Amino acid sequence: MNAIETIVQLSLADAELAVREALAKQGFGVLTEIDVSATLKEKLGVERPPLKILGACNPSLAHRLLEHDPSMSLLLPCNVVVEGVEAGTRVAAVDPLELITEPSLAELAGEASARLHAAIDELAARAT
Amino acid sequence: MNAIETIVQLSLADAELAVREALAKQGFGVLTEIDVSATLKEKLGVERPPLKILGACNPSLAHRLLEHDPSMSLLLPCNVVVEGVEAGTRVAAVDPLELITEPSLAELAGEASARLHAAIDELAARAT
Repeated sequence: MNAIETIVQLSLADAELAVREALAKQGFGVLTEIDVSATLKEKLGVERPPLKILGACNPSLAHRLLEHDPSMSLLLPCNVVVEGVEAGTRVAAVDPLELITEPSLAELAGEASARLHAAIDELAARAT
Repeated sequence: MNAIETIVQLSLADAELAVREALAKQGFGVLTEIDVSATLKEKLGVERPPLKILGACNPSLAHRLLEHDPSMSLLLPCNVVVEGVEAGTRVAAVDPLELITEPSLAELAGEASARLHAAIDELAARAT
């Protein structure tokens, strides 16, 4: 699926810190995190490249979304992944415009998408 | 969006416990949880009906999904929401078949969907 993404020349830990800061400037807090590679190693004994999934949420946007349509809780929070790739560290956010397709929610989805684009753009400007 | 869901005659806490047990039988662990109503009250001062979002993950399915297409990390984990509604407590899981539309992933999405259906069906049989 299409994502809002960049590849940065930072370690995984530094990229995570930088994207958390960039998200915070756009009003997104990180409410959850999953260390996917550690979880799969523990549960299945498999080795995978480093991958973390952060669950980012802008409370004001989330509240407005749920007021419009409570079933949208199934699409919260916005995933932001940080993963080790050959060229550096890839940071990618889900694009709300890809997931939220109801016309009545287009404005909210567009605002969330624009804010995630801004966060990833800031990260890219700092560290690509 | 379409969800795999039921409404049970249990308190929110009991419904959460029951769905965690039903998910575990289908190989899903709960890796994250967000108390949405508490978060929005803290951040925005708004009162909303009780709502929790659980992030459920079946490690074997997740591993196979990521092996096929690493970009699918943006769609993990599977959300399962537990919320207070007038008729009781609604428990709803996202349907992977709604989110994962690539034909090459249809079998995996179908297996994940079937397992989530089985978990919600078991819950419904116990407590509707």
